[in-house]
Amino acid sequence: MDQEVGGSNPPNCTKIQIMSENKKLNPELPSGFKDRINEELLLRDEIISLIKNNFILNGFDQLETSSFEYSDVIGKFLPDQDRPQSGVFSIKDENDWISLRYDLTAPLARYVAKNYDLLPRPFKRFQVGQVWRNEKPGPGRFREFIQFDIDIVGDSNVQYDADLCLVISDTLNKIGLKNQDFKIRINNRKLLQGLLEDLKILDYKQIQSTLRAIDKLDRVGIKGVELLLGNGRKDKSGDFTKGAELKKNQIDKIISFLDFKDFNKITPLNEIFSEGIKELIIIKNYFELFNFKNFVFDPTVIRGLDYYTGPIFEANLSFKVKNEKDVEIEFGSIGGGGRYDKLVNRFKNLNAPATGFSIGVDRLIYALLQYDDLKIKNIIGPIVICNLDEAYLGYYRQILSKLRDANICSEIYLGKNSLKNQLKYADKRKSPYVIICGEDEVKNNEVTIKNLKDTDKVSDAINREDWKSSSKQKKCSIENFLKEIKI
Amino acid sequence: MDQEVGGSNPPNCTKIQIMSENKKLNPELPSGFKDRINEELLLRDEIISLIKNNFILNGFDQLETSSFEYSDVIGKFLPDQDRPQSGVFSIKDENDWISLRYDLTAPLARYVAKNYDLLPRPFKRFQVGQVWRNEKPGPGRFREFIQFDIDIVGDSNVQYDADLCLVISDTLNKIGLKNQDFKIRINNRKLLQGLLEDLKILDYKQIQSTLRAIDKLDRVGIKGVELLLGNGRKDKSGDFTKGAELKKNQIDKIISFLDFKDFNKITPLNEIFSEGIKELIIIKNYFELFNFKNFVFDPTVIRGLDYYTGPIFEANLSFKVKNEKDVEIEFGSIGGGGRYDKLVNRFKNLNAPATGFSIGVDRLIYALLQYDDLKIKNIIGPIVICNLDEAYLGYYRQILSKLRDANICSEIYLGKNSLKNQLKYADKRKSPYVIICGEDEVKNNEVTIKNLKDTDKVSDAINREDWKSSSKQKKCSIENFLKEIKI
Repeated sequence: MDQEVGGSNPPNCTKIQIMSENKKLNPELPSGFKDRINEELLLRDEIISLIKNNFILNGFDQLETSSFEYSDVIGKFLPDQDRPQSGVFSIKDENDWISLRYDLTAPLARYVAKNYDLLPRPFKRFQVGQVWRNEKPGPGRFREFIQFDIDIVGDSNVQYDADLCLVISDTLNKIGLKNQDFKIRINNRKLLQGLLEDLKILDYKQIQSTLRAIDKLDRVGIKGVELLLGNGRKDKSGDFTKGAELKKNQIDKIISFLDFKDFNKITPLNEIFSEGIKELIIIKNYFELFNFKNFVFDPTVIRGLDYYTGPIFEANLSFKVKNEKDVEIEFGSIGGGGRYDKLVNRFKNLNAPATGFSIGVDRLIYALLQYDDLKIKNIIGPIVICNLDEAYLGYYRQILSKLRDANICSEIYLGKNSLKNQLKYADKRKSPYVIICGEDEVKNNEVTIKNLKDTDKVSDAINREDWKSSSKQKKCSIENFLKEIKI
Repeated sequence: MDQEVGGSNPPNCTKIQIMSENKKLNPELPSGFKDRINEELLLRDEIISLIKNNFILNGFDQLETSSFEYSDVIGKFLPDQDRPQSGVFSIKDENDWISLRYDLTAPLARYVAKNYDLLPRPFKRFQVGQVWRNEKPGPGRFREFIQFDIDIVGDSNVQYDADLCLVISDTLNKIGLKNQDFKIRINNRKLLQGLLEDLKILDYKQIQSTLRAIDKLDRVGIKGVELLLGNGRKDKSGDFTKGAELKKNQIDKIISFLDFKDFNKITPLNEIFSEGIKELIIIKNYFELFNFKNFVFDPTVIRGLDYYTGPIFEANLSFKVKNEKDVEIEFGSIGGGGRYDKLVNRFKNLNAPATGFSIGVDRLIYALLQYDDLKIKNIIGPIVICNLDEAYLGYYRQILSKLRDANICSEIYLGKNSLKNQLKYADKRKSPYVIICGEDEVKNNEVTIKNLKDTDKVSDAINREDWKSSSKQKKCSIENFLKEIKI
């Protein structure tokens, strides 16, 4: 078996004798990755569950593809080209290259091609899972994040595109957002295609840099886009980004296109452009039929990925969000998508036009954690039953059983530690109560309950004697102590 | 930026012009990976949620570390050495090697070392997530799977080990297993360590092959273990596995140790062995105090990973499970764990002894799908509102709103397709009902409901006329049709 992987091997880890005192390791994560804890994960679990339930209600099935795919199967549709391997994590596996998925759409296309005859058409599925991008990490930019995708494969009717927007909007309502908190922005790649054809911008690379320039409008403003469509732009740090090198009249026409507010008022430039307008009208009519108003036509919506062929959409939040430096920012999109009619055809000549929407779960959760109207559950730690003497463990067990049977998060402290240290522990766990039973309590079948809920740090202020006199402490019988517990 | 990654680059994917007709790709997954759908995912979501809730009830916090870690941070503790990179997926990242985690324990140790001062002690956390093993794939052996880990870091009291076993047992009860369906098997690495020291087996590699030999008992039987402890063993396919090359008296003593049923009856061989026995007694006493009987001492429990230092445990299912060839098998363990007191010390000299248990979620789900007493929810597809004419879309919308408001999974078929094809679609979706409204129904404010629940394939048997006369079809007013829907 080939022991050579790539040009050099991973660091030579001969068997690590863990008992021995080796050189100490640095407990850091590679850049672009992070650990997540409690509140964020609780909220995420809840949001994911609400989204799943609503997607099922809307007639979608669940799918999970694996994290690795053959590299050529997922292809290269990422806009970011400034990293080795074009933004993908790839590994040589025997004689083939395999890659971690960079989105959930390319694997879906592979799945549909593989199972085409077995699947209903349209195939309506959702999938939630991590994706990986081997990009240059930056502030708030991660190399691993969770996407929640919903797609409809096998029908070219753009009413399905419209329906997806309704599902997304309804889902955002169901997780607690009001209509004024977000808006669905709609565009059509066919308008852009028609415009570029009309301007004789036909070179693939020039098309790419033109789209990329427009896509940066949020960050660089309309003047910045103008520069990026022309010779290029120098940013604040002095870094220069090469432009698309379009001519003045080309740039002017693109800039004026980006300013359109009503697609009905644009004069169609050619056939593909007309087709784009027609599709937008069908979508608008569908919205009207369903009394859906929370959308806007926006010619500046581009969507980075390379595979879109028709209507494209984005969901933008409108409430205020602060970045990690506590500065209010234009938060922008929490997801988007569009029609990609040719992706499955990379595998077989099948009739599998498709449309989809992808929610950026981590971004959504980041914003929701700052959303005032959402009741974020505070983490409440376990009730800690302090351990004054090993001999009372049986007594503590009785108390624990009563708490757990009442579905109250609780535990016995099992370490050999002073009461003070046990209270420090309860502080750190944000325990609502501690239960203290020594000789007296056990003898009298009693329980001493200390309420910590409005106390910042009990362990510092209080010693064993203070406990007994404190007002926030109560002694009651083991039969009735549950009544004193209010979570 | 270094464009060379490893010795050769991923397949040269120049920009794929997706519109063009390239050579078609093969829509397959790399070996060792798989797609999962509906029933399995629904059950998994439910089981994961039950486990989470019970771990929280027992006083554990949730953590999520990233999928990538620095390669030296997670180290090399895997038993399987027959693959390049010793079983780990690794990638060169700028100047460092990073790897996909192969378990959730090594990342936990890194997390604890990094955040030691902020964490309560003991730190009680759970984490659920994928892990990756770059192993030789085989039948039922995957290179990506989900583990659900629960750990207690920061206390050396083995009562915490005992408590973990109680939590696991209670959790298996809560997901629906009865006590006779599983058993917790207990052993202690200190017994093995004491035994090997007593037998003067001190060479690291020989210790490893000895433990590996014992670990294979399930698969090769006691005779097989004897051979693997000696010169080696040839399997049915003729493949030869080299043995640990122990002497006859060493092998005999190990084999007789493996036969012990009661640790109280073993004469301690040395200090470390005695310590192991003492710990098992503490665990047994704790179990008795909590009236927990569903365990057994089993000296053949080894646990593959290299980092265990004390008590080790495994949860085994006892009900019958069939493999993919429909043959009943000894299903074996659905998880295990043990004490690993030195893992955090690889980073810093901290007081962080630890114990943990890991549930193999995919294996558990595989078995549960065959467990008779568990009510597996059948996937029920959406109610499909057939689309007889675009003009009636507003009418269909009214029906849809009523269904969705009643929380009934439903959709309008939006494709331009014959009724027969729409019914074929409903068949494939396992829809419980279809709703058919044409000119008559719309005019009279009525709804025609066809019950598909006990019908195998409606679309084949029925044409438009048959529908009208069928007994499983009902016409009712749009105000009252919900009453006829029984999911």
